[in-house]
Amino acid sequence: MPVERLAEDVRLMREAGVNFVRVGESTWANWEPADGVFEFAWIDRVLDAMHAAGIRVMVGTPTYAIPPWLVQAHPDIMVPALDGRRTGYGARQNFDVTHPEYVRRAERLVCVVVEHVRDHPAVIGYQVQNEAKGYGTASEHAQGLFRQRLREKFGTVAELNRRWLLTFWSQRLASFDEFIISPAWTNPCTLLEWRRFQQSLATATIRREAELVRELMRPGQFITENFDFWWRREQSTGPNPEVDHFLAAPALDAAGIDVYHDMQDAFDGHTIAFCGEWARSLLPGRNHLVLETNAQGKGLQFGQFPPHDGQLRQAAFAHVAHGARLVAYWPWHSIHAGNETYWKGILSHDLEPNRLYREMKRIAGEFAALGESLRGLQREAEVAILHSHDSQSALLDRPFSPQVSYADWLLQLHRGLFERSLDCDFITERETDLGRYRLIVVPCLYIADDAVLGRLVDYVRAGGHLVLGFKSGFCNPDAQVRACRMPGALREICGFSYQEFCNIPRLSLRPNAWPVSAAENWATDFMEYLQLEGAEALAWPDHPEFGKYPLVTRHRIGTGCVTYLGGVLSPALTGEILFAAAAAADVATAGGLWRWPVVHRALVNAAGETVHFLFNFSAQSQSVTLPARSETWAAPAGETVRAMGKVTLGAWDAQVFRGKSEPAVR
Amino acid sequence: MPVERLAEDVRLMREAGVNFVRVGESTWANWEPADGVFEFAWIDRVLDAMHAAGIRVMVGTPTYAIPPWLVQAHPDIMVPALDGRRTGYGARQNFDVTHPEYVRRAERLVCVVVEHVRDHPAVIGYQVQNEAKGYGTASEHAQGLFRQRLREKFGTVAELNRRWLLTFWSQRLASFDEFIISPAWTNPCTLLEWRRFQQSLATATIRREAELVRELMRPGQFITENFDFWWRREQSTGPNPEVDHFLAAPALDAAGIDVYHDMQDAFDGHTIAFCGEWARSLLPGRNHLVLETNAQGKGLQFGQFPPHDGQLRQAAFAHVAHGARLVAYWPWHSIHAGNETYWKGILSHDLEPNRLYREMKRIAGEFAALGESLRGLQREAEVAILHSHDSQSALLDRPFSPQVSYADWLLQLHRGLFERSLDCDFITERETDLGRYRLIVVPCLYIADDAVLGRLVDYVRAGGHLVLGFKSGFCNPDAQVRACRMPGALREICGFSYQEFCNIPRLSLRPNAWPVSAAENWATDFMEYLQLEGAEALAWPDHPEFGKYPLVTRHRIGTGCVTYLGGVLSPALTGEILFAAAAAADVATAGGLWRWPVVHRALVNAAGETVHFLFNFSAQSQSVTLPARSETWAAPAGETVRAMGKVTLGAWDAQVFRGKSEPAVR
Amino acid sequence: MPVERLAEDVRLMREAGVNFVRVGESTWANWEPADGVFEFAWIDRVLDAMHAAGIRVMVGTPTYAIPPWLVQAHPDIMVPALDGRRTGYGARQNFDVTHPEYVRRAERLVCVVVEHVRDHPAVIGYQVQNEAKGYGTASEHAQGLFRQRLREKFGTVAELNRRWLLTFWSQRLASFDEFIISPAWTNPCTLLEWRRFQQSLATATIRREAELVRELMRPGQFITENFDFWWRREQSTGPNPEVDHFLAAPALDAAGIDVYHDMQDAFDGHTIAFCGEWARSLLPGRNHLVLETNAQGKGLQFGQFPPHDGQLRQAAFAHVAHGARLVAYWPWHSIHAGNETYWKGILSHDLEPNRLYREMKRIAGEFAALGESLRGLQREAEVAILHSHDSQSALLDRPFSPQVSYADWLLQLHRGLFERSLDCDFITERETDLGRYRLIVVPCLYIADDAVLGRLVDYVRAGGHLVLGFKSGFCNPDAQVRACRMPGALREICGFSYQEFCNIPRLSLRPNAWPVSAAENWATDFMEYLQLEGAEALAWPDHPEFGKYPLVTRHRIGTGCVTYLGGVLSPALTGEILFAAAAAADVATAGGLWRWPVVHRALVNAAGETVHFLFNFSAQSQSVTLPARSETWAAPAGETVRAMGKVTLGAWDAQVFRGKSEPAVR
Repeated sequence: MPVERLAEDVRLMREAGVNFVRVGESTWANWEPADGVFEFAWIDRVLDAMHAAGIRVMVGTPTYAIPPWLVQAHPDIMVPALDGRRTGYGARQNFDVTHPEYVRRAERLVCVVVEHVRDHPAVIGYQVQNEAKGYGTASEHAQGLFRQRLREKFGTVAELNRRWLLTFWSQRLASFDEFIISPAWTNPCTLLEWRRFQQSLATATIRREAELVRELMRPGQFITENFDFWWRREQSTGPNPEVDHFLAAPALDAAGIDVYHDMQDAFDGHTIAFCGEWARSLLPGRNHLVLETNAQGKGLQFGQFPPHDGQLRQAAFAHVAHGARLVAYWPWHSIHAGNETYWKGILSHDLEPNRLYREMKRIAGEFAALGESLRGLQREAEVAILHSHDSQSALLDRPFSPQVSYADWLLQLHRGLFERSLDCDFITERETDLGRYRLIVVPCLYIADDAVLGRLVDYVRAGGHLVLGFKSGFCNPDAQVRACRMPGALREICGFSYQEFCNIPRLSLRPNAWPVSAAENWATDFMEYLQLEGAEALAWPDHPEFGKYPLVTRHRIGTGCVTYLGGVLSPALTGEILFAAAAAADVATAGGLWRWPVVHRALVNAAGETVHFLFNFSAQSQSVTLPARSETWAAPAGETVRAMGKVTLGAWDAQVFRGKSEPAVR
Repeated sequence: MPVERLAEDVRLMREAGVNFVRVGESTWANWEPADGVFEFAWIDRVLDAMHAAGIRVMVGTPTYAIPPWLVQAHPDIMVPALDGRRTGYGARQNFDVTHPEYVRRAERLVCVVVEHVRDHPAVIGYQVQNEAKGYGTASEHAQGLFRQRLREKFGTVAELNRRWLLTFWSQRLASFDEFIISPAWTNPCTLLEWRRFQQSLATATIRREAELVRELMRPGQFITENFDFWWRREQSTGPNPEVDHFLAAPALDAAGIDVYHDMQDAFDGHTIAFCGEWARSLLPGRNHLVLETNAQGKGLQFGQFPPHDGQLRQAAFAHVAHGARLVAYWPWHSIHAGNETYWKGILSHDLEPNRLYREMKRIAGEFAALGESLRGLQREAEVAILHSHDSQSALLDRPFSPQVSYADWLLQLHRGLFERSLDCDFITERETDLGRYRLIVVPCLYIADDAVLGRLVDYVRAGGHLVLGFKSGFCNPDAQVRACRMPGALREICGFSYQEFCNIPRLSLRPNAWPVSAAENWATDFMEYLQLEGAEALAWPDHPEFGKYPLVTRHRIGTGCVTYLGGVLSPALTGEILFAAAAAADVATAGGLWRWPVVHRALVNAAGETVHFLFNFSAQSQSVTLPARSETWAAPAGETVRAMGKVTLGAWDAQVFRGKSEPAVR
Repeated sequence: MPVERLAEDVRLMREAGVNFVRVGESTWANWEPADGVFEFAWIDRVLDAMHAAGIRVMVGTPTYAIPPWLVQAHPDIMVPALDGRRTGYGARQNFDVTHPEYVRRAERLVCVVVEHVRDHPAVIGYQVQNEAKGYGTASEHAQGLFRQRLREKFGTVAELNRRWLLTFWSQRLASFDEFIISPAWTNPCTLLEWRRFQQSLATATIRREAELVRELMRPGQFITENFDFWWRREQSTGPNPEVDHFLAAPALDAAGIDVYHDMQDAFDGHTIAFCGEWARSLLPGRNHLVLETNAQGKGLQFGQFPPHDGQLRQAAFAHVAHGARLVAYWPWHSIHAGNETYWKGILSHDLEPNRLYREMKRIAGEFAALGESLRGLQREAEVAILHSHDSQSALLDRPFSPQVSYADWLLQLHRGLFERSLDCDFITERETDLGRYRLIVVPCLYIADDAVLGRLVDYVRAGGHLVLGFKSGFCNPDAQVRACRMPGALREICGFSYQEFCNIPRLSLRPNAWPVSAAENWATDFMEYLQLEGAEALAWPDHPEFGKYPLVTRHRIGTGCVTYLGGVLSPALTGEILFAAAAAADVATAGGLWRWPVVHRALVNAAGETVHFLFNFSAQSQSVTLPARSETWAAPAGETVRAMGKVTLGAWDAQVFRGKSEPAVR
């Protein structure tokens, strides 16, 4: 801080109704200004002040940003990339997480920190690391660990040569020692294993720190990690290919996430819904924590876009409506120097109350008024999206289109559900209890072993409904393409096979079998040349050559059904096909009543009441009629809305109602 | 292979009529799994199986992809770029070809391979290397060789300082030892010599291997190399600036090429024509081999575009119609892993017969039916395009326009001929027998010595017709601009001079003197400010300033004629000016009858018959009337077509006819 | 030279009226072909020939391009970038200026050169260095100098930690020795200091050489440096962030500049005006030297655009009209090899007279005819633009918009003045005598200390008029954002404050309060959310959210006035607001008579006469009526033009008139 003002900050927080702060996650140099020398006065002072004000504190382990003295002592601790070039000091998250000197000191520091703060009454929990990753390290330590991984996985080089097809381009190894990863490797098998290795470094770091904390912490305290999503400048936030949240989460008591989304006219609620449904799926039954989200905006590289009036409040309710039990902003006040000078906080650099401070205060007031209604909000979804981290990873190296990524396609499918107020869980290909979902959407299961494919077959044969995307079943877990007609093990439930596929320009479909306009009726970028073997063709491209092959098919097997998307479809078509599949699967759709910009969510709280959330993600007010079969909804102020009753939503509005028991509106 | 299936592959090949396979060119680690340890069983098995099925085999020397053990033993064998950064292992074609440890082992291996296979009855020939290059090596070995080259070429540093003008920017050398190439060098003289040096490394590798093979091989076997063209993502395939095919080819018995071209609606036949006419010019009188061409498509980076029905067949006949005696696909089947997983083969990953396998079978059947008709097809062209490798190289460093390259311009001129069914040879500036051509097209002879320019002057004075492009005669062979009015030694035959030139926007020409629409009547990017000294001006830019100087001129000298293109013209204008020049030069033009998408080619086979090929490079069928002065053409099925008779070509169709003797249709 | 022709060159120069040449600035290897071995015959020969022809010579110190022998002896003399990668030899301006072996030899050479030439009668002055810079060196020498700078500036690491806020991301230093700059640093405080350090290297080099020369040179000789501006391919030339001309100029007798600008239809006079007004402001009262400017064009990377007929002459007069006492072209003749082969000279490569040689001869003739009229032209401007090098530097790292830079915005403001024939000085934030200007334009004073802000406040309170741009007053000199409501110390004179700001799309303003068309009435990219505290709002964005905050305000304080631009405005709006502010400040505006493409400039010559220059920067001739209150103007040929009289300007024309005494036309 350029000025001393702890007391003033605490006063402003209290006045606004803030009851939680997160501290400590990049303060190594404060805790340990020199090797083995520790200082605590600075943190005690903060904890005491917070405690005195009744504000609870989560302490982050300060291990994701290293101090200068560690670099001076061990210059090779800076992370080297695949090409061997080391980054310099000056940022964060850029050291070699496999370096023994880092690991030894990070472990020591975690213990020192937890031992020091665990008994402070303000401290309720811990965040281990922050956005943990492997940082792409290709140091000699990392190379050694990767070779060890190969040894353990493949046993012999002959097996490795065989499964990675290293005969190609004369790359057959005579011993594991010959293997060195470099930027020149383009074999998809190698690249997928390397991506998995990097992901495993993140998981290992989280697990190691969580174990240390768990051993030392006070009963009743919790452990979380701040999971981040995939930042992509001009595209939506998506699954993060650098870390597998599903594998890391079991080490934690609660999943934490940071959610940064577009604001102003680009605020549509979708990123919050995606991140929330993702996070609540990591540790089912346990509400997640939004550890960071937009205050005045994101960093300069994304543009400066402070929220319009009302949007901060709307976003807060949107987090809650997707299962969050905490909404925390980053940062409290705008920082006066350093990299994040323009990653602006609730307070501006002037440190005075402002428009957004006042809106945050309003949010805290409404949360307090709703009180028990919002406790323990849970939702048993009827729809699941099956995400495959391996598939995303492998397709980064062998994309089906230069324009459309796996993440784009998954998000388009999720958006199709979201815009029709259909909520969903995310599951992975490791999920064995598929039967609890009425509909499973599989965007693109490019990498899968036989057991995974078998479970999907069994699900459909047992009456399950599947919306299946292109390229599913294509490769085995080594990223080797399967030597069979595609989609391989899924061929029979799909009712077709294909031998070829193609990148395509935008093509209209015939017939236009769903309620979309002619302008929205198209496929693009990629299609497979499906040869029917029992399935029903629903649409073909309107083209003399490509039109020889259908693009969307449906295959019923008993009461089970596979709707297949054989190419990239327009967002509107994707949404309508999903909606039709959901209706056919008897998912509660409220008859299609809710359409974006109006979004409805319903959860059950700890008291067993259904809590309804209605959002208007637009600047134009919206009038909504409740469905005919709806129960009576109670608004916070006491008034009620009955079936067929009207609710008016203002610009960027969110409203909350209590219902009875059954969240599904059919 | 993920599964054992040699027998099945051979069975499918036989069934389809395949009678040739190419094997071995990136299998070093199979031949020599450890330094000096050789294995042969794997190749014997393949050769035996092929021989049993009557399939002939060409064996590639496996020296363009090195095994891991060689890198482990000599890490500095990986190629360092100009900036000294070494690439890592993991791909191919990325080692230091000047490294003594590479050279020694590559030579040993070539001998081992040839000694082992030469007596196998299946083996009919050898490919040395594969797409040989210098890979840009700037290793200490390469630096030493380059300094040695400078010593030999210039004798003294004073001479080097003088010819490279090293006084500029204080770069005068006191000894050759001071010279180190680096990415900072921008002197065009230095850059041209470095490019020539890199080209010479490719030539040297090919020659060295060819000599080794020639010494050992069985009489009757042949030697070829797989020459590749210049890959450019969104532009046409062009001359390859990294290797000079014309200098390397004399070491071979036949020129081999790989030809990858656009398919689907972008298939226009031009790339095949260009590559074919180029390849047949490398060793005149000897038919070339198409060693690789599109099966299901090119790699993922170019998009996945399997051919439309009929296009595979059409492409095969197009290769033959430009002089190929072999059409081989890469690869036979799609590969299940490795870099080229999506560089898809005739068979898909499922390894079953498919649409393209069936089309290939049809091709083989038609080739067999045509039999002797297709043997020894030759063509004595009346038109030649003079390509200057030095000019292309130098213009890469000093382009006349950021948009249009030397290769673009050469290809545009070639396309102008192709679209009017005018075939041509390619010759280099070293060609001394210019008089055998009625018309010589010189795209841009930026680098040329006095003798070369003198031969062009003599050609015109002897009655030759020349279409000459801008910037010709500009530099001497050191890439030093000539200190005289341009176009220097060509000034007198051109009938103008110029002192200035300019980059221009798209400008209309006046008058519109050729049969092109107003929309096609333009120049763009670059023009010279021609000052007439006897030539006739044919067109000027329509602009108050640029219009002071003509852009197209014609100068008759006796019966000789120079048509000069003083700037970049539209494709349509370029084509029409070429056609007019061809007609004026009494080239057989069939009166302009054939116009793309219909393309006609005529060659003479070993029996002295003329074989006519007609193509329709479009999805719309075309009806063509044979020229009035045409002889009678015999179709394969026995029927004949007479002069003025009609031939109907279907979508993406190719038809073959036998005529009498004279391929020229005037 | 490829041919010997010194005599011919001198003859052509004399014939054209050339009376000055600049030689020697990149000829180290000629002066000193080996370490400590010097040669002089080559330069004596040139000096003698020039002297014999009456041509005066300026000699450049040859220290900005090093010879090969120095690199061979000290390979680490090549400049390493922040990431440690060293550039190779082969270009110029790419060595480590902090390397002791360079410094020692450069100093020795400067002395050797000056001692040798000082007594030659042809030599009238010296250029030290050429476009001096730090070249981004991050060598160990540079790192040490930078740490030393930090030690001297901050005294203790505690102070550094505090002022750079290094607690953030755990970067607190325990000692200065721990600090190593690297590309990973993103802290704006660190980056600004590093940029200042690089600028200081340029200043130090210039000062050191100037001191050496001054000690040795003959009385009456002068010292200059060739300052260059910021090259930006598709944007205007702007202030150069790599060197602070204002800090370096006091070591010189005259400021020299190179001015390269667009030609042909893109020639608008603005770059010449900007560079000229900038240069004349560096050493007020002393006319500057245009040491290099367009002959046939700029290098190939900018396209080849030789001037249209008349433009060379027009540009020469434009230089003089902005205070130049020399117009020198680069280069005399086009060079036949080396990097600048296409940076074409007055002569083409043919070395014969040509169109531009003839135009240069005409210019020299007119200059000679005007004779004493053009001597000592000075201008006391009524308007100043306050440029802050620190602000430009800091905003490169933290731009207010990805599209619009500080330089763009400064140039847009300058262009607004230029297009209305309002001339200006450039001043820096260090200027203390603000009161001599009627109007001061402050584009964006992002970095400023309290004293600077205080001077602006005092200026307004004393009746000064200010046009102030957004983000002024934002940071202290450490680049730390000030912890107060913005614009901080300027808040009171502005009459508003703001807490937020935003990137915006293009938005119309309401009302349209200036004479611009609807199509020109917009703001874009960036705005602040101004909260009025006494100022008058002049325009708001037309938008439901952004329209809550005014974008342009005016605040009168006594006779002083602040016009505030709270965002990026259209060029037209910017110009009109500036014009209105100038008129309100009683600046001489000629009633808005002169509007681009007609530009008027008036200066006072040594004889006290006013000299008027009129330009027409267009291809259409223009008829201009002199203002009613104008004095009588005398044209060179003797005729006069009176008030209300007409002057006709042809295409790309420049005309000169002598008036009486008062340049201001009110």
